[in-house]
Amino acid sequence: MRNQKITVSVIGGHNADDEVERLAHNVGIIVAQVGCVLVCGGLFGVMEAACRGAKQAGGVTIGILPGKEKEEANKYVDIALPTSIGYARNVMVACSADIIIALPGSHGTRCEISYGFVYKRPIIDMGNWNIEGMIKVADLRGLELKLKELIKAISKETKQS
Amino acid sequence: MRNQKITVSVIGGHNADDEVERLAHNVGIIVAQVGCVLVCGGLFGVMEAACRGAKQAGGVTIGILPGKEKEEANKYVDIALPTSIGYARNVMVACSADIIIALPGSHGTRCEISYGFVYKRPIIDMGNWNIEGMIKVADLRGLELKLKELIKAISKETKQS
Amino acid sequence: MRNQKITVSVIGGHNADDEVERLAHNVGIIVAQVGCVLVCGGLFGVMEAACRGAKQAGGVTIGILPGKEKEEANKYVDIALPTSIGYARNVMVACSADIIIALPGSHGTRCEISYGFVYKRPIIDMGNWNIEGMIKVADLRGLELKLKELIKAISKETKQS
Amino acid sequence: MRNQKITVSVIGGHNADDEVERLAHNVGIIVAQVGCVLVCGGLFGVMEAACRGAKQAGGVTIGILPGKEKEEANKYVDIALPTSIGYARNVMVACSADIIIALPGSHGTRCEISYGFVYKRPIIDMGNWNIEGMIKVADLRGLELKLKELIKAISKETKQS
Repeated sequence: MRNQKITVSVIGGHNADDEVERLAHNVGIIVAQVGCVLVCGGLFGVMEAACRGAKQAGGVTIGILPGKEKEEANKYVDIALPTSIGYARNVMVACSADIIIALPGSHGTRCEISYGFVYKRPIIDMGNWNIEGMIKVADLRGLELKLKELIKAISKETKQS
Repeated sequence: MRNQKITVSVIGGHNADDEVERLAHNVGIIVAQVGCVLVCGGLFGVMEAACRGAKQAGGVTIGILPGKEKEEANKYVDIALPTSIGYARNVMVACSADIIIALPGSHGTRCEISYGFVYKRPIIDMGNWNIEGMIKVADLRGLELKLKELIKAISKETKQS
Repeated sequence: MRNQKITVSVIGGHNADDEVERLAHNVGIIVAQVGCVLVCGGLFGVMEAACRGAKQAGGVTIGILPGKEKEEANKYVDIALPTSIGYARNVMVACSADIIIALPGSHGTRCEISYGFVYKRPIIDMGNWNIEGMIKVADLRGLELKLKELIKAISKETKQS
Repeated sequence: MRNQKITVSVIGGHNADDEVERLAHNVGIIVAQVGCVLVCGGLFGVMEAACRGAKQAGGVTIGILPGKEKEEANKYVDIALPTSIGYARNVMVACSADIIIALPGSHGTRCEISYGFVYKRPIIDMGNWNIEGMIKVADLRGLELKLKELIKAISKETKQS
């Protein structure tokens, strides 16, 4: 049996417009409300907005940073983990997740989605990625329900092992 | 100003005799008591005993795993972060730390100490490593005092920045 | 001035049908004929066929392997470099290249394309990826001409620096 | 049967005094003379001097670079492989080697020696490291004989597999 927290990696661009930041903020709130630890790349844009949401809802946030110093993290990161390995840290943002939520982003986000598939993590599409194999949800309410369903399955599975 | 938790990486061998496991367990207790998050490689021996101590004292434990699955972690890890990068994850165990505590170990531990020096982390010697530049403490009481001193310095520094 | 060999990374699926393997073989021949070192992930499918082509044309092949042992490489790899870091080695296959040629593949290939963009390498599309920013060529003859043009530009640039 | 080149990683400090540079230069000459590809971290000090020696003797040199650009390499590197993963690349310098030769160095070199042990590579001590498990040789002549012996064993082993 696994006594671990369930981790949700929120991925998306470090540049994000207001609408995407609002979405990321709401996603962060939901991740915290369903009781998961929010993991992200620790920097700005989607990452910062999601951490801000999670903190507002009383959650815990982890930033897996590309550089070697904790000062690099956005201010809503509780636990900053500098990796020193640059954007190779993307593999860890994906692999560290029980569940991945993909918001709009660019090549870095696309890279993390690819690693999510390589390591067979469930990936929820909140960014119109429309890639075969990603999980579709209609809206934030749909996201919440899907997260609860996945969490239940993970909890059951790990109790049996 | 940094709102982050202070992280302490406890490093040491995945095979450890009873005496070293007792030491690791006590080190874990102290890390939790001084209010830090315990980071480690997530596996067995020193890592497991230190996590067990931290949990007993009400702390939070993070395991930075070499493999790609969370099941690999010892059962006292709260937040398991599979990296998929093998023992290259040693660089992260060192770099993720505000403070490193080195217990007895073998080549993997030696590697993490080296990275601690490369990335200029303070390294407390609890394993008779006797390497120039490591911080010596006499015993567990000395460890506790040294940790408090380092935490105070880190808090002051990050308040100013 | 840089006295280095120009490296071309050939990326694509480790499962490839006959048609894609023929394409990869021909791409490998051209890479060797224009005087470049062929870099790849060192395994099978597109990687093996491209190495076979390059060897047939008298070229040099490098395999950047995910595992820790050289035995993992396909038999047309001259210089096997086990990384031990799993599929995080994808970042290196991209970053090690002066020029990337992308053949058909799956998530691993997509990941390497993403890293190619992150690290601003020119990426030639030989796999109908149709991603904005990739370089299109009509056929193998078009590939050869484009490679010669890129090589000329790289040589000029590095002579000036 | 493995058709690969045998690789020798030469490791040591990026700051080296005249005596150590002379030693590194001579080591590079011998690595090339016995027919091996010289692998190193691609930077300066021991790495540059060893590459210079290998080039003088007609050998091939590979630099596994911490950064993301080939310009970072010393001018005796034939094939520059930027990894983008910082000093985590040390694991690759060790793991890519059939044989490691350790010259004097500091924490980075010590880290590569540790990884050499983790991944069970033979490590020849040319830097008074005096670590249990390293192979001792008396001088450059002893190095040459030891390399030939190891090469013979590797060739025999890979012919059988």
